Amino acid sequence: MQKPVEIADFVTLTPTAEVDKARHGWRAKCLQRLIRLELPVPKTVALPADTVRAIAAGQVFNAQALAEIFGPEMLVSVRPSPEKPEWGGPGTVLNVGMNDDMHAVLSNTHGSEAADALYLRFVQLYSIHVARLDPDMFQQEPGPGSLEAALDAYEEETDERFPQSGARQLAEVLRSMARAWEGTTARLLRQAKGAPPDAVLGLLVQEMALGIGPGLSGSGTIQFVDGVTGGPQITGRFRGQSQGRKDAVETLYLTRDPRGASLEEVDGQVFDTLKEFGARCRMKLREEMQIEFTIESGEVHVIDAVRVPRSSRAAVRIAVALAQDEVISREDALLRVEPRAITELLHYQVDPRAPRDVLARGIAASPGAATGKIVFSAAAAQASAARDEPCILVRRETSPEDIRGMHAAVAVLTERGGMTSHAAVIARGLGLPCIVGAEIEINGRERHFRGPKGRIFREGDTITLDGTNGEVLVGAAEMLEPALDDGFRTLLHWADLVRDIGVRANADTPDDARTALMFEADGIGLARTEHMFFDEDRLTVMREMIFADSPEDRRTALDRLLPMQRTDFLMLFELMKGEPVCIRLFDPPLHEFLPHDREGMRELAEALDRPLSEVTRRVEALSEYNPMLGMRGVRLGVTVPEIYDMQARAIFEATVEAIRRGAEVVPEIMIPLVSASREVEIVKTRIDAVAAAVRTETKQDFTYRLGVMVETPRAALRAGEIAEHAAFLSFGTNDLTQMTYGLSRDDAGRFMSTYVNQQVYSEDPFHILDVEGVGELLLIGAGRGRGARPDITISVCGEHGGNPESIAFCRAAGFDYVSCSPFRVPVARLAAAHFALLAPRGRSVP
Amino acid sequence: MQKPVEIADFVTLTPTAEVDKARHGWRAKCLQRLIRLELPVPKTVALPADTVRAIAAGQVFNAQALAEIFGPEMLVSVRPSPEKPEWGGPGTVLNVGMNDDMHAVLSNTHGSEAADALYLRFVQLYSIHVARLDPDMFQQEPGPGSLEAALDAYEEETDERFPQSGARQLAEVLRSMARAWEGTTARLLRQAKGAPPDAVLGLLVQEMALGIGPGLSGSGTIQFVDGVTGGPQITGRFRGQSQGRKDAVETLYLTRDPRGASLEEVDGQVFDTLKEFGARCRMKLREEMQIEFTIESGEVHVIDAVRVPRSSRAAVRIAVALAQDEVISREDALLRVEPRAITELLHYQVDPRAPRDVLARGIAASPGAATGKIVFSAAAAQASAARDEPCILVRRETSPEDIRGMHAAVAVLTERGGMTSHAAVIARGLGLPCIVGAEIEINGRERHFRGPKGRIFREGDTITLDGTNGEVLVGAAEMLEPALDDGFRTLLHWADLVRDIGVRANADTPDDARTALMFEADGIGLARTEHMFFDEDRLTVMREMIFADSPEDRRTALDRLLPMQRTDFLMLFELMKGEPVCIRLFDPPLHEFLPHDREGMRELAEALDRPLSEVTRRVEALSEYNPMLGMRGVRLGVTVPEIYDMQARAIFEATVEAIRRGAEVVPEIMIPLVSASREVEIVKTRIDAVAAAVRTETKQDFTYRLGVMVETPRAALRAGEIAEHAAFLSFGTNDLTQMTYGLSRDDAGRFMSTYVNQQVYSEDPFHILDVEGVGELLLIGAGRGRGARPDITISVCGEHGGNPESIAFCRAAGFDYVSCSPFRVPVARLAAAHFALLAPRGRSVP
Repeated sequence: MQKPVEIADFVTLTPTAEVDKARHGWRAKCLQRLIRLELPVPKTVALPADTVRAIAAGQVFNAQALAEIFGPEMLVSVRPSPEKPEWGGPGTVLNVGMNDDMHAVLSNTHGSEAADALYLRFVQLYSIHVARLDPDMFQQEPGPGSLEAALDAYEEETDERFPQSGARQLAEVLRSMARAWEGTTARLLRQAKGAPPDAVLGLLVQEMALGIGPGLSGSGTIQFVDGVTGGPQITGRFRGQSQGRKDAVETLYLTRDPRGASLEEVDGQVFDTLKEFGARCRMKLREEMQIEFTIESGEVHVIDAVRVPRSSRAAVRIAVALAQDEVISREDALLRVEPRAITELLHYQVDPRAPRDVLARGIAASPGAATGKIVFSAAAAQASAARDEPCILVRRETSPEDIRGMHAAVAVLTERGGMTSHAAVIARGLGLPCIVGAEIEINGRERHFRGPKGRIFREGDTITLDGTNGEVLVGAAEMLEPALDDGFRTLLHWADLVRDIGVRANADTPDDARTALMFEADGIGLARTEHMFFDEDRLTVMREMIFADSPEDRRTALDRLLPMQRTDFLMLFELMKGEPVCIRLFDPPLHEFLPHDREGMRELAEALDRPLSEVTRRVEALSEYNPMLGMRGVRLGVTVPEIYDMQARAIFEATVEAIRRGAEVVPEIMIPLVSASREVEIVKTRIDAVAAAVRTETKQDFTYRLGVMVETPRAALRAGEIAEHAAFLSFGTNDLTQMTYGLSRDDAGRFMSTYVNQQVYSEDPFHILDVEGVGELLLIGAGRGRGARPDITISVCGEHGGNPESIAFCRAAGFDYVSCSPFRVPVARLAAAHFALLAPRGRSVP
Repeated sequence: MQKPVEIADFVTLTPTAEVDKARHGWRAKCLQRLIRLELPVPKTVALPADTVRAIAAGQVFNAQALAEIFGPEMLVSVRPSPEKPEWGGPGTVLNVGMNDDMHAVLSNTHGSEAADALYLRFVQLYSIHVARLDPDMFQQEPGPGSLEAALDAYEEETDERFPQSGARQLAEVLRSMARAWEGTTARLLRQAKGAPPDAVLGLLVQEMALGIGPGLSGSGTIQFVDGVTGGPQITGRFRGQSQGRKDAVETLYLTRDPRGASLEEVDGQVFDTLKEFGARCRMKLREEMQIEFTIESGEVHVIDAVRVPRSSRAAVRIAVALAQDEVISREDALLRVEPRAITELLHYQVDPRAPRDVLARGIAASPGAATGKIVFSAAAAQASAARDEPCILVRRETSPEDIRGMHAAVAVLTERGGMTSHAAVIARGLGLPCIVGAEIEINGRERHFRGPKGRIFREGDTITLDGTNGEVLVGAAEMLEPALDDGFRTLLHWADLVRDIGVRANADTPDDARTALMFEADGIGLARTEHMFFDEDRLTVMREMIFADSPEDRRTALDRLLPMQRTDFLMLFELMKGEPVCIRLFDPPLHEFLPHDREGMRELAEALDRPLSEVTRRVEALSEYNPMLGMRGVRLGVTVPEIYDMQARAIFEATVEAIRRGAEVVPEIMIPLVSASREVEIVKTRIDAVAAAVRTETKQDFTYRLGVMVETPRAALRAGEIAEHAAFLSFGTNDLTQMTYGLSRDDAGRFMSTYVNQQVYSEDPFHILDVEGVGELLLIGAGRGRGARPDITISVCGEHGGNPESIAFCRAAGFDYVSCSPFRVPVARLAAAHFALLAPRGRSVP
């Protein structure tokens, strides 16, 4: 025997009523706030979540007491009120209480046509959603006889008259909405939006404000900022003689408009009232609200109000404007913008309102959108760029030889690879939209690719790549421009004032450095030098260096690279105007600079004037089983020391030149792939010697800092020893993750999705820092490094650097800065500000 | 002004004299022991090292007091006495004191010919080594007038008469020997033998026992065991009327010999005296000694005695015999045999006494020697084995596809690779002699290779490979057989009685298991299952499995592999007779089973009846950038679970069958390449289900243990979590080293020697466990594993398992066992015994 729910579980919304968001839902709370602001909200009663759950569970519910609150001529709506707006809920049901008597009353006051329409709408809705009758039976259009037809259909199907008791109607509507919340589909939908499995629903019963009647009557919504731009602009709609969003009778513009009549003109006083309501909400609720209102014979009722739905760029502008108007604090403004969301402000976007013809989907590897003509090779991309024709580079996968092509393209699309494939990483670094692992099949010989539905796209065809959501679109889609506006800059300056961890950029080229400057990074945390050698003229010299038969020949080749490198570094120093620049010495295996196909080897043999067989043999001899774990980084520095000698000289000579031109430059030199402290000692000895030589030759003093990239587990474990020779330690979390997991990022794509789906890994560790494993090595390394050398600088560079989760971890561990791709810098600055505001800084273990 | 050295620094050797090995040297100590044994040692005076050093430094030395000890007719030898015998020292100088007066005396007593010879020898030696005169002037053969010629030459060169003062002669000889010790060459030579840079020298002055004279006179050495076999056998030599090893006059056999006269026959009493001296030494010095003696007119003098130089096999046999005779304890016997040295007992050896024609050198990757005909392919090796012709497989490098060929060959020679290349690791596992990275150039097309001097060797030519020292020899060299004799077995049984850490073998095949049994391993610690799939018939089914389009097709192929695997495991279980067998589930990437060349792919396309393009595409799709860090191990187990299902079923069905045949089998199943505990959970769930199914189907109960191979740094860090699902953790130190260093063992060869030479790494970490880095991960993993599950079994498997250093580390860390290649088991057993004897067992950090 089920126990009836107690009537004490209702609360009528008043300024002082006890309303709790967790029990009664966000809408109940919001309406109470509006009531406190003395806005004309119709009488509203809130049912708490436990009551709603009991109703759903089938407990007998006596609605009589509830109905009596609204008097004998009850006419109400029932609205959902979950804890958070985004969790949705069942649709609002209007006109509960309509019966033959009410119909008669309304026929008198509002005319029989309006009364018929209201009654018909309720009968239809009730029959289909509450009584669960066949919808086909209730498709009547409003008009003569349709109400009777609907009532007859109900009676026929249920063998009883349409319920005339308002209390019973209300009880049934509440039960139906309570059960809808428990349905599987509804549950999955709201969980997709972040609701917990046990999310609950409150329900609101509100007196109807009809929006029909004599004089100005109708319903509408109004907001005072643009949801896309965030700029001040009154938008919304008003429909005369209507009571919801769907049954428009007569539409008015809100503000004066050449295209037709507007509410502003028709009733200036009502319009001013609405504007005043908006201003009151903004000031008191400290938010831009969208107000839902009804006008009944010139009298305004506020039915509901929600935060203005907004794009990321609008969110920034609204928050900044509220703070500038001193409605909220700057700190609040910072916290109101989700760091990850601002990424899209930095890129072109496909206009979400435009139609899209999706030809294929893939992994959204680098955000932003671009339109261009298809090219299938780096060379074609460069040729296209030379003609000023935007092109999209389409490859099965990319390799370092494609980098110039990637520079030349406006976007990159690959058939293979995952979030951490070469294409993805480089594209994110370049800020190029990129989709990898796309469901396309490239036919290189025929110069076309085939989409999943068999559609063929050829070289020269125009496509649009939406790297934000991983869609390849046919043709040129409509675009929104990036939004590096004043609001954006202002917000990030505020972030800089509160954040307590540095944010540098990974930047290899002057272009990268300019991007880093544009995004106001605190310097360059990782300047990889190897990309500098892929220019065509340098590549040839590199290859001569690789093929040198003696250290002397090698030095001769390196002597030709020296002035080029010096120029590279001088440009970086000058661009960065005294901000720190951390240069990583040469890292990749030498075979990356050699051709791998027969044709390339033949050309190389010609260029070097050596027999093909020798070139082939040398290429084979340099090839590796596991290049990631091979002859690279400091291992080259120790065994072929001339390369680092040259780089050190280039850095120091550039430093001297920059100083002579008036800059304050203290270069940072970083040694990659260290696994033993002796490696650092050996390289340090040679670099110190080069510095001494340059000081003597140039008669110019300068200082520099030598540090270590910690990217092997062993370097983290031995950080104490290593720190004795290093002014800084920078964790290269990409490689460190690879080695800690024993997992190549280039090969992980094959099973990463299975792994994340099966919760083997909670997240792709190349995407989100693995706090438990890699993170422990970071803590061990930082702790031991600091133990040996308390003033050592500790940082993270690599893909993870820009992630809010990593920043939280690094802050908690007392790191000095993170370094990330230039396009992640704004996110990192904002995220760092969030953490500084939300948690006190400490150097303890997180 | 230099201060003369005090005469108090001499000590005459008596049973009670204060003689210190560190000051006076090993020989002084040894002679004192002989004196205590009442052996007839001529009067001997020892000069301590500080005196010798002062002499070398040029301090004035008054030899008069020293000379007086030996009386007016002093005739002495001066012998070196460093701290350890193997450090060498300057050559002994005989006959110090010879002058015109002594010549006259000796002419009377021994005849003028003998007196001339003794005097001539001393003049020559003194002139060349002490006075440093031109050796060409002192080449006189003994004979009439030669003594005068030598004396004249001395006078001519030095403008003075040959020194007639015995004291002066002695002073000069001592000075010359003291200085020789300080020379650079001598220093380098002894440091190569382990002497510290500050090693010092004592000198001994000993009364001459001339070995010439009337009656039985002469000099010789005698020992009572064979230095090569260690068996009881009197060997040595005796030369009548001689006083050193060089100036033979008349040679006698020691024991009765059909080829000629022997000491035993000529003077049985003297012979018995020598035998009694030997027995006395053996019993009192507790060692087999080689005695140097002089017989002067039938009277025996013992000049010196040293430990019998011995091969490793002799060392074992001598130690065991001494213990069996209760001369020493069994513990002493164990400690007298160097564990590493016994490796060579397990293999054929090139006879060190035979001539060798070295055609090339390389890295000695797996010990032992073998002779065979050159073959250049695995197929040719198998064909050769089928004809019962021993062959040596010569490859640029080997891959898993060569394994059958390696099984068929008697030795392996490769042009590329290092100590940890595929060829080296597999060969050590198989106990095959192997040289890698040899200075040869293979021409596959011409089927020959070229040695460093341009010599060409063709398929079918016979060579001998000496894997112990890395030499490739022309033709068939003379061999010594392996020595798994009673002494060897006895010693290792004694080792088993004292050792306190288990020693298992890594064994993949029944052959391996038999070897493991022969070497009495405590079970199998690592049975890799992948090699089982390279049999030709299985390889085809494997490939069908890889190409399966659906899980059903894959299961069909696996169903065909099931009975084969069941047989594999049943054989292992039956062979091992209840000893534990730890089976590692499938580990390598699938592409290892696919052909990589066009021809192989064409054949595969035919075999599978699929288009070549499809085969090519699939092979390309499966290829990886870094196979070591790719889709292998448990990653396959999670994403293609049917493979592990099949293997688990094969293991359990074999277990049931073995139990039914009466064996007690508790199989251990090991999951490779784990990096997250959830991987273990997922695999465990499926394996438990297979076990339940097999129990139901067969109505036979059985148990098994599921464990994890810890070979990623992350698995070590997360061992606590992982241990919750694992009965044992076995550290795979090969892969763990690769990942901790970020270093592929296949690619490390390119710079490892540079690194070790420059002391970047103190040792090749693939060879000697890196205690600081990898070792810390072992300690972390073991500690966390035990913390979560105190009864968990902890072990190491992999190349390092058999190294004494690793065993010491694992014992100190409280590991339960080590597992190593079968041929390392005896070394490991002995080393473990050493550590148990030398250090108390603890589970604390080493």
